[in-house]
Amino acid sequence: MTGILTDLYELTMAAGYFETGKSAECGTFELTIRRLPKNREYVLTAGLQQALEYLLNLRFTPEEIDYLRSLPQFARVSSGFFEHLRDFRFTGDVWAAPEGTVLFAGEPIMTVRAPLMESQIPETYLLSTLTFQTLIATKASRMSRNAAGRGVVEFGTRRAHTPEAGVLGARAAYIGGCIGTSNTLAGYRFGIPVMGTCAHSWVMSFESEIEAFRSLQKLLGPHTIQLVDTYDPVEGVRRAAELGRPLWGIRLDSGDFLTYSKEARAILDAAGLRDAKIMASGDLDEWRIAELLAAGAPIDAFGVGTELATSGDAPSMGAIYKLVEVDRRDTAKWSEDKTSLPGRKQLFRFPDRDVLALASEPPPQGAEPVLRQVIAKGQLVEAPPPLESIREYAAESLRTVAPRPLEHSAALTALMDRVRNERK
Amino acid sequence: MTGILTDLYELTMAAGYFETGKSAECGTFELTIRRLPKNREYVLTAGLQQALEYLLNLRFTPEEIDYLRSLPQFARVSSGFFEHLRDFRFTGDVWAAPEGTVLFAGEPIMTVRAPLMESQIPETYLLSTLTFQTLIATKASRMSRNAAGRGVVEFGTRRAHTPEAGVLGARAAYIGGCIGTSNTLAGYRFGIPVMGTCAHSWVMSFESEIEAFRSLQKLLGPHTIQLVDTYDPVEGVRRAAELGRPLWGIRLDSGDFLTYSKEARAILDAAGLRDAKIMASGDLDEWRIAELLAAGAPIDAFGVGTELATSGDAPSMGAIYKLVEVDRRDTAKWSEDKTSLPGRKQLFRFPDRDVLALASEPPPQGAEPVLRQVIAKGQLVEAPPPLESIREYAAESLRTVAPRPLEHSAALTALMDRVRNERK
Repeated sequence: MTGILTDLYELTMAAGYFETGKSAECGTFELTIRRLPKNREYVLTAGLQQALEYLLNLRFTPEEIDYLRSLPQFARVSSGFFEHLRDFRFTGDVWAAPEGTVLFAGEPIMTVRAPLMESQIPETYLLSTLTFQTLIATKASRMSRNAAGRGVVEFGTRRAHTPEAGVLGARAAYIGGCIGTSNTLAGYRFGIPVMGTCAHSWVMSFESEIEAFRSLQKLLGPHTIQLVDTYDPVEGVRRAAELGRPLWGIRLDSGDFLTYSKEARAILDAAGLRDAKIMASGDLDEWRIAELLAAGAPIDAFGVGTELATSGDAPSMGAIYKLVEVDRRDTAKWSEDKTSLPGRKQLFRFPDRDVLALASEPPPQGAEPVLRQVIAKGQLVEAPPPLESIREYAAESLRTVAPRPLEHSAALTALMDRVRNERK
Repeated sequence: MTGILTDLYELTMAAGYFETGKSAECGTFELTIRRLPKNREYVLTAGLQQALEYLLNLRFTPEEIDYLRSLPQFARVSSGFFEHLRDFRFTGDVWAAPEGTVLFAGEPIMTVRAPLMESQIPETYLLSTLTFQTLIATKASRMSRNAAGRGVVEFGTRRAHTPEAGVLGARAAYIGGCIGTSNTLAGYRFGIPVMGTCAHSWVMSFESEIEAFRSLQKLLGPHTIQLVDTYDPVEGVRRAAELGRPLWGIRLDSGDFLTYSKEARAILDAAGLRDAKIMASGDLDEWRIAELLAAGAPIDAFGVGTELATSGDAPSMGAIYKLVEVDRRDTAKWSEDKTSLPGRKQLFRFPDRDVLALASEPPPQGAEPVLRQVIAKGQLVEAPPPLESIREYAAESLRTVAPRPLEHSAALTALMDRVRNERK
């Protein structure tokens, strides 16, 4: 994992900390959800495993160091800094909310405490990794909720912001409740169930639709899903029904899903194919899924692409990575609308409210701490949980953690006032 | 580049083509802009270089093949298919619009002609790669246009959908007119100018703001940009002005940019720092940039993050990859709202209109063909142009190609009618 996959200013600041003798000072940064994304009442965290892999493997190659040396911004930097980069390792401590945790505005996802240089450089990568997967897991959880027990399958790699984002998005979508993905590499890498049968090109590559259907059935047996809308969806369903079993079901990829799913159900039932399922895909989101089911569409599974893979209605979230402590000095900023809270903190979760307190405070009775130590002195504290456990934990969080008020402890409020007054 | 970074159905179809003896039939696919993204009157293409690198390096490892073999969807597939995957290479022909081309709805970006299996598998990767970079290049071009000669710098990696998307987004943004990026790896990999000086954490890590400013000046000399809004922006500008030269300028990252930029300009001018520049960053998009400049904000450069890195108002675009020809048979689909046009095509660009014609038609007088052959029999036709040339070509396209009607040639219309009638 290259250390130069970051904003240049992280590296100029690192050089500056080194040059001013501050690079060994301990800096604590907090990655916090400043605002919830648009249309969201909560977020479901994901991406921690990739964030940890990054921190544990952060390095600079000699070629990358030479590149930095060649930049005008580093013209005044002494060679000691570049030598230091050669042996750069992350040696600090990290606390984080487990993947699959429900969080709200103003709550921290991660705390990083390390020598200033080591805690500064990861800012860019950590923000991108954690917020992207969190956005997708959150979106998936909304779709799964509205699908009310019917399966939602992640189909979005072609719309993801790079194919690799499709792989990590598939992981996040599975954490959020999707039952599988079309992304084969995500299946290979993470053990996620992979799904998919054929596209319109399959049907078009044969002289006739019925020939295409027959060949697919021979290829896939009971996994066959006939794509019926290449030419005429109702005709397509009739042909699929005519061929009969083996058949998992049919897929509608365009048109009025309510009307066509009802027609398809009637045709399949009349052919004695009551167990054949109906899948819909194309321009679906959580609202459309809810509408279709409320209107009584007999759809058994949803394939969702674009809106899930990009978190289409909310493709970004306002998360910040802010310095809260340098050595023993607490810090905060007062920029308009962008105030940050000083001190290393813990989030305590009560059944009906969350409390943000200083990490040094004794844990209150009846509350669970949300942030857990995941890296100690640059080493993983324990092996990350398997993806299936994360997915179960996410389902449990979604079931039990309702939106709630966030309170600040008395000690945190007092510290905030003190830091603000000192600055004045 | 792994062949399994694709939707599973591409691979089940590949297996099906193999099993039905169709894998050697030549399939021509067209990657077309079905609809323009929201709020866009054109798109600016980007991502071709990464798409070509993928096609030229597409392989399957033995472990990946074993994984496919283990999936229930491949239980009926003969071992000949898996042996074929071991030696898989892309051996076909590809035509594409050069990066930096302005295109409109209904126009093709790329045509892929290869044995069916080879032209089917790349669908997912090509769609993601080309549409993502195209979205970002388009967004960047809108911001640059509205900045009317002032520099726009890409700052968005922390909001990109994975850090790697930040690197490729930076490339696309540079093609679209940004003058540089904060992403250091994008600078290293693509030679894009990298920019950035310090964050609020730099200022907060010092006991006082003036000490932070002085240290930055010592570190960066004439590249110094003082971030003035950690505590109070007007006070911050006064302190930066007090320190004087060397100084590139100051950066405002919050608050009312119109008011603060005017105050900052007055303070800097009064201190004899007329050449010190003012940069604004934070929650900017093309509309906000236009508003600020129309209101007379003395801002010299814009740093844009979230909205650029995610194409926030239009994070996806409706592009399709459709089979238009199998061997010599022309194909099309009639799904509602998702009709595709048969036959391998060329887009001809006249000064005032575009014409979509069959590739076999003689080129009309006075028009330029937009699609150019980039891969022949699996080999690159010529080395890709340097990024600087792509950026210049993009600027030229943006200057000269206004929105225009898209016409279909008489031969294409006739073919469309014939294919539709045959199907009926």
